Amino acid sequence: MRLSQLIEVLAGHGLKARLDGEDRLIRAVNTLEDAGPGELSFLSNPKYLSAVKDTKASAVVLKDGITVPAGISALRCADPYAALTVAIIAIHGHRQHPQWGVSKAAGIHPTARVGPDANIAHGVTIGAGVAIGARCAIYPGCYVADGAQLGDDCTLYPNVVIYDHCVLGSRVTIHAGSVIGEDGLGYAPVEGHWLKIPQVGRVIIGDDVEIGANCAIDRATLGRTQIGTGTKFGNVIVIGHGTKIGPHCLFVGLVGVAGSVTVGQHVTVAGQVGMAGHLHVGDDATIGAQAGVAGDVPAGATYLGSPAIDTDAAKRSMIAVQKLPDWMKRVKELERQVRELRGRLDELHQK
Amino acid sequence: MRLSQLIEVLAGHGLKARLDGEDRLIRAVNTLEDAGPGELSFLSNPKYLSAVKDTKASAVVLKDGITVPAGISALRCADPYAALTVAIIAIHGHRQHPQWGVSKAAGIHPTARVGPDANIAHGVTIGAGVAIGARCAIYPGCYVADGAQLGDDCTLYPNVVIYDHCVLGSRVTIHAGSVIGEDGLGYAPVEGHWLKIPQVGRVIIGDDVEIGANCAIDRATLGRTQIGTGTKFGNVIVIGHGTKIGPHCLFVGLVGVAGSVTVGQHVTVAGQVGMAGHLHVGDDATIGAQAGVAGDVPAGATYLGSPAIDTDAAKRSMIAVQKLPDWMKRVKELERQVRELRGRLDELHQK
Amino acid sequence: MRLSQLIEVLAGHGLKARLDGEDRLIRAVNTLEDAGPGELSFLSNPKYLSAVKDTKASAVVLKDGITVPAGISALRCADPYAALTVAIIAIHGHRQHPQWGVSKAAGIHPTARVGPDANIAHGVTIGAGVAIGARCAIYPGCYVADGAQLGDDCTLYPNVVIYDHCVLGSRVTIHAGSVIGEDGLGYAPVEGHWLKIPQVGRVIIGDDVEIGANCAIDRATLGRTQIGTGTKFGNVIVIGHGTKIGPHCLFVGLVGVAGSVTVGQHVTVAGQVGMAGHLHVGDDATIGAQAGVAGDVPAGATYLGSPAIDTDAAKRSMIAVQKLPDWMKRVKELERQVRELRGRLDELHQK
Repeated sequence: MRLSQLIEVLAGHGLKARLDGEDRLIRAVNTLEDAGPGELSFLSNPKYLSAVKDTKASAVVLKDGITVPAGISALRCADPYAALTVAIIAIHGHRQHPQWGVSKAAGIHPTARVGPDANIAHGVTIGAGVAIGARCAIYPGCYVADGAQLGDDCTLYPNVVIYDHCVLGSRVTIHAGSVIGEDGLGYAPVEGHWLKIPQVGRVIIGDDVEIGANCAIDRATLGRTQIGTGTKFGNVIVIGHGTKIGPHCLFVGLVGVAGSVTVGQHVTVAGQVGMAGHLHVGDDATIGAQAGVAGDVPAGATYLGSPAIDTDAAKRSMIAVQKLPDWMKRVKELERQVRELRGRLDELHQK
Repeated sequence: MRLSQLIEVLAGHGLKARLDGEDRLIRAVNTLEDAGPGELSFLSNPKYLSAVKDTKASAVVLKDGITVPAGISALRCADPYAALTVAIIAIHGHRQHPQWGVSKAAGIHPTARVGPDANIAHGVTIGAGVAIGARCAIYPGCYVADGAQLGDDCTLYPNVVIYDHCVLGSRVTIHAGSVIGEDGLGYAPVEGHWLKIPQVGRVIIGDDVEIGANCAIDRATLGRTQIGTGTKFGNVIVIGHGTKIGPHCLFVGLVGVAGSVTVGQHVTVAGQVGMAGHLHVGDDATIGAQAGVAGDVPAGATYLGSPAIDTDAAKRSMIAVQKLPDWMKRVKELERQVRELRGRLDELHQK
Repeated sequence: MRLSQLIEVLAGHGLKARLDGEDRLIRAVNTLEDAGPGELSFLSNPKYLSAVKDTKASAVVLKDGITVPAGISALRCADPYAALTVAIIAIHGHRQHPQWGVSKAAGIHPTARVGPDANIAHGVTIGAGVAIGARCAIYPGCYVADGAQLGDDCTLYPNVVIYDHCVLGSRVTIHAGSVIGEDGLGYAPVEGHWLKIPQVGRVIIGDDVEIGANCAIDRATLGRTQIGTGTKFGNVIVIGHGTKIGPHCLFVGLVGVAGSVTVGQHVTVAGQVGMAGHLHVGDDATIGAQAGVAGDVPAGATYLGSPAIDTDAAKRSMIAVQKLPDWMKRVKELERQVRELRGRLDELHQK
C-alpha cells in the first residue's frame, strides 16, 4: 500500500493525515526500533523521540512539528495512535486461521449441530447436543462439552475448554488454555470436611467478548455467571461463580473476582486486582493495579489500594505511609518539646 | 420430585422443613432471578429479599416469618442454605461424564495398568508403568506421565497434565488445564547463569481432593510436595516444591505458596494470598484476601495484610492508614501550638 | 555410585569433600525425612538439624562439626547445597523423555522443517512454515503455529501453545499449559466499544530459557516481546506485549508485567509482583514478593511494597504502619498535654 492510499483509508475513518516526503510503498508496520526499509513506524509518546533518529523505517506517522531525518517520509496526523490502528488493520488485517474445514479427525458427537463454513481442527472434541454457529474456528485440543452453544464467527484457540451447557455469543474469541464453566468453590462444611454442592448453573458470554490465555471462569452454582457484550479480558483472569460483568469492560491480567459480584458497564480493572464476593462495582468505574476491592464501588469512581478507596485518597495515604518514619520523628520531637515546656512551666509555678 | 418428597429427603439429613402452600412437582433448582415455573429457589441472605417478590419460581426455601407472594409454595426451614445443598444433590445430582469406556484412540502404554470400569477418552496419553484405579474418568487432552498413580474414582477434566511418578489418591477431581508435578524453580547460581537442579521428587495428593482449573503444583526437588486429604483448591493456585498442605484446607484462587511451606489442617486461604518459603501455618488458621504471609502463623489465628498480621490489628492499621493525612494535619497543628506555647513561655521568662 | 566416586565427581566441579564413615553404594538422593537405606541426604539449613537424628538415609552431606548418628556415613563439605546439586545431577540426571520419534499421529504441515533426532509425540500440531531444530522433544497436545521457529534441544511439555511466528532459541524448556504469543490487550476505544488492533509482532525467547506451567506471554503489537537468554520463569507468569526481559533473570510465580516494560539482566522478581507499563528495571535489581512496581527501578536496587520503594525504607514503613494505632494514641496524648499546658499558661497570664 502506498502512503497516499493509506491517507485515503485514514480519511475514510475520519482521520486527516498529510504526507511530508516521498510517496512510498509500505509492506508492514513496525516499531521504530525493529522497522526496516518498506516499513511504516510511528511516534506517539514523545518519550521515544530519540528513536526516530535511529529508525530504518521508510515512513513514520507522527504529529506536526517533529522533524524526521532525511530520507524518511512523515505522515503527519493529529492522533498518531489512532492512525496507527487503522494502518495496522489496513496493511496487516487480522490473523488468518489455518483451514481445516470440519476435520475428520475431530470428535464430533452425532447430536451436535455445526453451522456452515465451520473450521474445526483435528483433535477437537464436540459433545452431545452442542450447537455451533457459522464460520467458527476451533483449534486443536479444544473441548466443547455437552449442551454448550457457540454463536457465529467464534474463535477458540488451542486447548480451550468449554464445560457443559455454557453459552457463547457471536464473535467471541478465547485464547489458548482458557477454561469456561469449571465448578467453583461450592462446598458446605459438614463434620470437619467439605461436602461438594453440584454446580448446576452455567456461564453465558455475550457477543464480541475476547478472553486472554489461561483464564478460568466458574459456572454458577445456580443460574449464570455472565460476561457482558464487548468485554475484553487479559490473561489469567479468574471469575467466581455467579458473578456478572457488564458490557464493554476491560480487565488487564491476573485479576481475581470472587462469586456473586456485579460489575457494571465500561469498567476498567487493572492488573492483579482482587474483588471480594457479593459486592457491586458501578458503571464506568476504574480500579487501579493490585487494588483489593472489599466493598461497593460507586459509578464513575476511581479506586486504588487494599482495601480499595478513592484513588486520590489512596495516593495521599500511600505517600503518607512512605513518610511515616519521618512523621514519627516529628511526634517524638513534639513529645520532647512538650516535656521541656512542662518542665519550664513547673519551674515558673514554683517561683 | 414433589416438595413433600423433598421434605422427607431433608429429614433424612437431619433438616426439619415445613411446607407452606401447594405440594408441587419440582424439576430443577435455580436462583430467584433466573427460576421459572417448576423450579425451586431459595432466600438465604435477607439482602436479596426484594427478589422474592419478583421471582417466577414455583417454590422457595426460606426461614419462617418471611411472606411469599400468593401462588408460591414456601418450604420453611431454619437453615435454607443447608436445605438448598441437599435439594440440589437430590434433584440434580453430580455431573454425569460422557461414556468413552477405554477409547481405542487413547494412547495407553502397554505397561500401564487401568482399573475396572475406567472411562478414558480419545486423545488421552497414559505413560509407561502408570497405575489407574477403578472407575476413573479421564477427559481428552490429559497426559498422565510415566510411573504416575491414580486411585479409584478420580476425574481429570480436559487437558490436565500429571507429570511422572506423581500420586493421586481416590476420588480426586482436577479441573481443566491444571498441571501437577512440573519442575519447580530449582537452580543454583553458577558464574552468572542458573544451573538447573533435576527435580527428582514428586507430588502426592490425598483422597477427596478437588483442584480448580489452571493450577500448577510443583514436584519436590527431593521427596514430595503434598496436598492433604479432602483439601479443595480454587482456580490458578500455584504451589512451590516441597510444600505440604494439610487435610481439609480450602484455598480460594490465585494463591501462591512458595517452597518448603507446611500448612496444617482446616486452614482457609482467601484469594490472591502469597506465602513465603519455609514457613509454617498452624491448624484452623484463616488467611484473608491478598495477605502476604512472611512468617509462621499460629494455629487458630486469623491473619490479614502484607506482611500478614492478626486480622484485628491489620484492620486497625488499615483504617489508621486511610486516616493518615488527617493525623498528619493534627501533628502539624500540634507543632504550631507547641511553637506558640514556647513563644508565650519565652515572653513570660523575659518579664 | 559409591561415596568415594561421588567425592571424585565433586572434585571435578571444584568442590572438596571428605568421607567420614563407611564407603557406601548410593542409588538415590532424598530428603532427610523421606530417605531410606541406600539413599544420600543432606543438611544445609541448621534449622533442620533434629531431622538428621531420625533419618534412615545411609549417608548425609553436611558441614564439618555436626555429629551424625552411628551407622550413617557423613560426606563433609563446606557448601552442602552445591554438593547436593552435583550429586543429584550425577546420580539422577535430568528427565528422560518418552521416545516417540516423529509420531505418524502428529499433525505436521508439509512445509514445516523438523531437525534430526526430533521426538514429536502423537497429538502434536506443527503449522505451515515452522522450523524445528535438532533433538527437540514435543509432548502431546502441543500446538506450534504457522511460521514459528524452535532452536535445537527444546522441550515443550504437554499442551504448550506457541502462536504464529514466535521464535524460541536453543535448549528452551516450556512446562505444561504455557502459552507463548497470544494477542495482548490491544484495543482502541471507539464510540463506547473496544476496537481490536491486530497484534502483528511476535515473541522471541533466547537460549537456555525455562518457563514454568500455565504462563502467558503476549506477542508484541509490533516488533517483539523478548525473554532473554538463560532467564527462568516459575508458574503462571503473565508478560504484556512488547515487554523485554534481560538475560539470566529469575521470576518466581504469579508475576504480572504490563506492556512495553524493559527489565535488565540478572533481575530477581519474587512471587505475585506486578509491574506497570512502560517502565525500566535496571540490571541486578531485586523485587520483593507482592511488590507493585510503579516507576523505574535503578540498577542494583532492592525494592518492596506497593508502590514499590527501596526495601529498607519499605520495611521501616511497614513496621511503622503496624505501630500506627500506638502512635495515634501518642498524638492524642500530646494533644491532651498541649491543651493542659495551654490552660496552665492562660492561668499564669491571668495572674
